[in-house]
Amino acid sequence: MNGAESLVRTLIASGIDTCFANPGTSEMHFVAALDRVPGMRCVLGLFEGVVSGAADGYARMADKPAATLLHLGPGLGNALANLHNARKASTPIVNIVGDHATHHAVYDAPLSSDVEGVARPMSDWVRTSKDARAVARDGAEAVQASLSGAGRVATLILPADTAWNDADGPAPRLLPPARPKVSDEALKEAAAALRSGEPTLLMVGGRALRARPLELASRIAQTHGARLMAPTSNARIARGAGRVALERVFYPVADALAQLAEVRRVVLVGAPEPVAFFAYPGKPSLVLPPDCAVHHLAAPEDDLEDALERLADLIGAGAPPVLQALARPDLPSGALTAEAAAAVVGALMPEDAILVDESINAAGFCYRHTAGAPAHDWLQLTGGSIGIGLPLATGAAVACPERRTVALQADGSGMYTLQALWTQARENLNVTNIIFANRAYQSLETELFNVGALNPGRTALDMLDLRRPDLDWVKLAGGMGVEAARADSVERLIELVGTSFRQPGPFLIEVPC
Amino acid sequence: MNGAESLVRTLIASGIDTCFANPGTSEMHFVAALDRVPGMRCVLGLFEGVVSGAADGYARMADKPAATLLHLGPGLGNALANLHNARKASTPIVNIVGDHATHHAVYDAPLSSDVEGVARPMSDWVRTSKDARAVARDGAEAVQASLSGAGRVATLILPADTAWNDADGPAPRLLPPARPKVSDEALKEAAAALRSGEPTLLMVGGRALRARPLELASRIAQTHGARLMAPTSNARIARGAGRVALERVFYPVADALAQLAEVRRVVLVGAPEPVAFFAYPGKPSLVLPPDCAVHHLAAPEDDLEDALERLADLIGAGAPPVLQALARPDLPSGALTAEAAAAVVGALMPEDAILVDESINAAGFCYRHTAGAPAHDWLQLTGGSIGIGLPLATGAAVACPERRTVALQADGSGMYTLQALWTQARENLNVTNIIFANRAYQSLETELFNVGALNPGRTALDMLDLRRPDLDWVKLAGGMGVEAARADSVERLIELVGTSFRQPGPFLIEVPC
Repeated sequence: MNGAESLVRTLIASGIDTCFANPGTSEMHFVAALDRVPGMRCVLGLFEGVVSGAADGYARMADKPAATLLHLGPGLGNALANLHNARKASTPIVNIVGDHATHHAVYDAPLSSDVEGVARPMSDWVRTSKDARAVARDGAEAVQASLSGAGRVATLILPADTAWNDADGPAPRLLPPARPKVSDEALKEAAAALRSGEPTLLMVGGRALRARPLELASRIAQTHGARLMAPTSNARIARGAGRVALERVFYPVADALAQLAEVRRVVLVGAPEPVAFFAYPGKPSLVLPPDCAVHHLAAPEDDLEDALERLADLIGAGAPPVLQALARPDLPSGALTAEAAAAVVGALMPEDAILVDESINAAGFCYRHTAGAPAHDWLQLTGGSIGIGLPLATGAAVACPERRTVALQADGSGMYTLQALWTQARENLNVTNIIFANRAYQSLETELFNVGALNPGRTALDMLDLRRPDLDWVKLAGGMGVEAARADSVERLIELVGTSFRQPGPFLIEVPC
Repeated sequence: MNGAESLVRTLIASGIDTCFANPGTSEMHFVAALDRVPGMRCVLGLFEGVVSGAADGYARMADKPAATLLHLGPGLGNALANLHNARKASTPIVNIVGDHATHHAVYDAPLSSDVEGVARPMSDWVRTSKDARAVARDGAEAVQASLSGAGRVATLILPADTAWNDADGPAPRLLPPARPKVSDEALKEAAAALRSGEPTLLMVGGRALRARPLELASRIAQTHGARLMAPTSNARIARGAGRVALERVFYPVADALAQLAEVRRVVLVGAPEPVAFFAYPGKPSLVLPPDCAVHHLAAPEDDLEDALERLADLIGAGAPPVLQALARPDLPSGALTAEAAAAVVGALMPEDAILVDESINAAGFCYRHTAGAPAHDWLQLTGGSIGIGLPLATGAAVACPERRTVALQADGSGMYTLQALWTQARENLNVTNIIFANRAYQSLETELFNVGALNPGRTALDMLDLRRPDLDWVKLAGGMGVEAARADSVERLIELVGTSFRQPGPFLIEVPC
């Protein structure tokens, strides 16, 4: 058994059964080992940003890491942006990155680069295997590292000769450390804050955004009249009918400041203190009032459900949770706007859907009009690096083939990683891609104003304008084997969305709005 | 004047008049400054790999750097693969990368990352501006750094507040150091090698691959019966009718070993010692014979033309250079193969074309069938990171709008950065994109065998197969506003190539082969 096969067997023994891949020469032994070892599903992406984004979507829904297979420093470079997003989502990912054979490194061949240097900024754990016999143990430690903390990005670099030389066999699974329990002192402090009588905010994030911990959080908040909120961007929220209704911190700084102006105490459960996404001249970075007390009950890596259970017990949280009633929006008529498109999704989406939101300017409409739709999971762009939506939906659909995944996708960000559509077609994934085609980096038009760059001229506006030529998403999807159509009216959109939700496989709908 | 404007003015004063951009919020002040300062052409790319690859193609043809404008760590991450290629091509590039405002960095907002860490592996020079008044001087030094040595990648990181705060004004141009002259001792050693009577190879690279230094090299080689060769991968070669005919080192290790087996001395002029692209089990990394003496006449950063002139003088190089006669291939008929497609290009290409080669498996045919075509420049993938062809062609066409650029593009690698087609359409660039659509990572099928992974199974072969579904490049191009057609026969290909060469603007031809 060579090093590559020892790694494949170790990954499978460690619970990883899915690998998103864009391999090259240095990874051919790993690829070849996949045929000798049953149990690893390998999904090809035609660009590495698809691979890393899909691994993120997969892990968010499967609650376990996928592996990626990437080709040397530049291949890893192409994956970085979505690894950045994954890291901000606390998604566990195990990257396997090939490199030149150890004895070849001194020759500075064209593909030579500092692979560890490329890995480090977007990885929590980086290692280069020293020889073939170390690969299996390194792989087991990489999986363990990915599952440590709240979820981490682990990158294992495999020089080609460590893949092809003889190894001893697979390594056993290494369990990650248990999630720490919060201290009684922290619980008492949080309880005191909730009982203080002052306007208090219970801010929950990370794994506390699943259905059961959210119910606990809602009961806690209700018992003492606290507000319950989530951060602006979250890896996954359980929401919809029968789930806890959840307010999020607004993205625009002025709106967030107004939203939080009355808060005097905030209890953080797996969420960071809210800050502005960007700095702007003359605006604050912190959006909580300056005199607001911040109580850190639980960090993202802590056992959040346990913390909420114990807090509920401590305060005697007898109030029932505030659950969302089933309340779909009416099917719209009239003009085809982004809001109308969001209402169509809310009106028609099936039970237990997965909604992936990179709709940017349409995101407010999408969130609002799906709030009372049947229970679903809501996946967001967490790291601000656009180009995650289509890959994230692809990976989520690989993890949950029986569910309908809906990608709510802005056109500008969709273009970064449009190759994901090909993978959806190859794997026949149940993804409905709805492209909000405003044909602009529209959010930047607002941001140009926000940063104080007033009265922009032709050159500046051209940089934000995706017209000349217009993108034709029906052709782009068709070029990658995904059935697609343009909705030129609300009625047509209703028809197309309904059709897509009923038929298996991927579909793309371009919505000019 | 704010920091951003001081930088734009400094770049223009330093000779940079073209900026390839994919900006975000942090770069809005730079974008806004472009309208207040005349003289900077700004070209939008819909993905950062397009931006960096286009900057590479531009500089290879314009012989001066372009700037790029990129959005924080992830945006730079997306640009890394083609920056890697640019660096291996010794292409000067000045990256301007926005970052969070200095006072915002402590809050770990979603887009926060170690931007310098992302930059370092693919940059020769990295700096973060400390404040607005430092930006202009930093910009002048970045341009100077990019033009130092043989050509370098310089990355200047601009925290948003250094862009929007007050600056003092632009900084003056800083000239790069002159290219060093080689020593008389090195010349004498090279001359002695050439006169040794032993089989000697004159190996030229980098700037020595332009028309005049190649003529000098050919005269030198002819005078003492030496062979003249170039490395496998080169940034730009002047070739075709009336230019020096040039052999290159073969990519397959076995072929390179056979090609160089008789060589006993090699004189290097701006070229590295040839090595295998990848290591393979049981094959050597070095492709020169073990007893071959290596004489380092000139490093890539040296004044190569001066070195060749002095060497020609020293040896009294009286022989005329061996120039290629005009010898176009005949227009083919019969089956539409990759070789036939290459012959069509060679038969029809106009005078003074720019050929960008990322045709991978078709590259041998393309090189051979254009050898006797009218004089042209030949641009290659230099760093082995696929996905450079379409961006490189885009940038070359921006630099040379009056010339016809021909992208010889494999389908698998083309998919990495297909967004370049949109920029070709927006800028109405004279690019003919010829897609060699073999619908596979075909080179990897060979590599799977080369690394000793024999008898691959279904899983492995699926990772190399781009069918299911077939990519439709006509639709993909149409989706980005580029006129396109599929050639289903040689006759149709001849017609399409002829049409594209005659009409302005971009065109794409899919060649199933």
